[in-house]
Amino acid sequence: MTDLIDFGIGQPSPSLLPAAALQTATARELATGSPTLLQYGQNQGDAAVRASLATFLARRYAMPVDAEQLMISAGASQALDLICTRFTRPGDTIFVEAPTYFLALDIFRDHGLTVVGIPTDADGIRVDLLRDALAQHRPALLYTIPSFQNPSAVTMSAARREQLVAISGEHDLLVVADEVYHLLDFGSAPPPPLAAYHDRARILSLGSCSKICAPGLRVGWIQGAPPLLQHLIHLGLVQSGGGLNPFTSGVVRSMIESGLADAGLDMLRGVYRDRCAQLCNALRDELPAMVFSEPQGGYFVWGQLPAHIDAGRLRVSAVSAGVAFHPGSRFTVGGEFASAMRLSFAHYEAAELLEGVRRLASVVAL
Amino acid sequence: MTDLIDFGIGQPSPSLLPAAALQTATARELATGSPTLLQYGQNQGDAAVRASLATFLARRYAMPVDAEQLMISAGASQALDLICTRFTRPGDTIFVEAPTYFLALDIFRDHGLTVVGIPTDADGIRVDLLRDALAQHRPALLYTIPSFQNPSAVTMSAARREQLVAISGEHDLLVVADEVYHLLDFGSAPPPPLAAYHDRARILSLGSCSKICAPGLRVGWIQGAPPLLQHLIHLGLVQSGGGLNPFTSGVVRSMIESGLADAGLDMLRGVYRDRCAQLCNALRDELPAMVFSEPQGGYFVWGQLPAHIDAGRLRVSAVSAGVAFHPGSRFTVGGEFASAMRLSFAHYEAAELLEGVRRLASVVAL
Repeated sequence: MTDLIDFGIGQPSPSLLPAAALQTATARELATGSPTLLQYGQNQGDAAVRASLATFLARRYAMPVDAEQLMISAGASQALDLICTRFTRPGDTIFVEAPTYFLALDIFRDHGLTVVGIPTDADGIRVDLLRDALAQHRPALLYTIPSFQNPSAVTMSAARREQLVAISGEHDLLVVADEVYHLLDFGSAPPPPLAAYHDRARILSLGSCSKICAPGLRVGWIQGAPPLLQHLIHLGLVQSGGGLNPFTSGVVRSMIESGLADAGLDMLRGVYRDRCAQLCNALRDELPAMVFSEPQGGYFVWGQLPAHIDAGRLRVSAVSAGVAFHPGSRFTVGGEFASAMRLSFAHYEAAELLEGVRRLASVVAL
Repeated sequence: MTDLIDFGIGQPSPSLLPAAALQTATARELATGSPTLLQYGQNQGDAAVRASLATFLARRYAMPVDAEQLMISAGASQALDLICTRFTRPGDTIFVEAPTYFLALDIFRDHGLTVVGIPTDADGIRVDLLRDALAQHRPALLYTIPSFQNPSAVTMSAARREQLVAISGEHDLLVVADEVYHLLDFGSAPPPPLAAYHDRARILSLGSCSKICAPGLRVGWIQGAPPLLQHLIHLGLVQSGGGLNPFTSGVVRSMIESGLADAGLDMLRGVYRDRCAQLCNALRDELPAMVFSEPQGGYFVWGQLPAHIDAGRLRVSAVSAGVAFHPGSRFTVGGEFASAMRLSFAHYEAAELLEGVRRLASVVAL
């Protein structure tokens, strides 16, 4: 085991990819489904696909979900890009959590946006500091990852969700909730997704098959009040392409209707729960200098090293020792969290997780 | 046959969709292919997919094509949207042909661009008028559809292509060539695609499986000089999504490698050649007042009615008579071409094409 163990890889291990299930679902879709999913489709996404997805989400979210609140996207990243195209202009300010998903920051950069980070704590975004920031700025949107956050693994408390929704309503603040990890709890569900609050504020909730089925499918969804979705449904890109991924969304419908989607998701929750425990145990045993809260879902451990250690510099020697990670500073615009790192447990099995931690401990000790 | 016959539908008839071939290709891909295509993939698109596509394009374009010149997209529309995100800012001026593809105009609108139309004639864009326009504007890009243009069916002559490339080089003008119809000739190939000139000017050529295989796949490609492609490869959306459609692009690779892509394309060329002839014959027989040039490829007939007829107004009575089309004014920003219409022959068989023309003739005669 001399290959690089890269805790930066935020994707499933190959053994978790549902190739056989997708083959079954695709054959079912192409044999019995309507060939209309090979055509340019409805801008909002095929009605039958959205109906299946609504049923799936209602069951998994344990709340009512209407197909009219759903628009099919080609993944949460594309949804975020569409939202920037429609709801922002270069030079606009937007708010994110600090820390936040690093590649979302790249999408915001591409749209010429000025990003302001709002601090977070163990209950999620600091709504008091959000209020302060709103006194100074008029952001085009707030981007939040409420459940099992990337990178911090923090889940926003129910009270904070309520407060955030209230602030959104008061300030007419568009909230873009990246809820792609929401369904990946390890046993106890987080508070209701922000999608549940669509009737109380301008909220667009992004979901995806990437984390619960297979990233390469590029199927996701945007959930929100129908009048808000209309702004996206009528974008030129959506009309010209005839919806955002008709064929693969049909395959996903087939996965849902045959029960393969539920079975796959529950399998993943169990595997990630075990891997998370394995990584956390290894960190406690091998690298006691790292401080972290044990995640209750998602993909990531957010580890804090002693303040004198710069994780970006450490990564150079770590790679020489055969282990990599994303330094904390990558998840901000201001370079904070210099001593933190994000460690994904989704991509490796127990032995590799342990070996990776040992390699990491060896360079921290230097 | 009382249903609406909508000549506005620019997509294949259901019988032309390769459901069986796609089922074979998907099964092959998932059984023998690498499951990496279910993962987040390479930003530029999987190397093996690009190698297969390069071989396919080299054969069909009859010119060298290097996989390094190709980036996989989720269709030409998404490619155009990405290009706008990366190479334009709201308020910028861009040039298009007059007339041009109406939904491209919507994409440009979404990006806040000011669109200037450059007149065209039977040889394509008027390069003399393009020079004049360049004396007045500094456009962020020129959008052109060189072969079997949408809507006019005109193919830019070889001389015009050379002149356009020279102008692009002189003015450092980014040319975005929408070449999605290029391979749909009815027997004689158009001059080389603008993709062939990537070493002489800043040219990005957009291709797609939508017109040669199935729209719902949402797989296309951007062809250009590797340094120019780098600007797109590093966009946040592309990195965050892990390439733009890994799974379906793998299915397309399988279609290419098994010969199904070539067979399907040649079948479509024959069908569209016949349907085009059927539509043109029906127009000559039933609606002699319409002036048009018989297309040599693509999807569309661009018909001119006498100047006193407003096609937009005519469409209202046409729909009552069971036939629809896109009025010419939809293909411009200034409302020109009021007496023209675009008629697609891709979606209907001979009897429906004839019936549609008869209905159209009945309302023109009113």
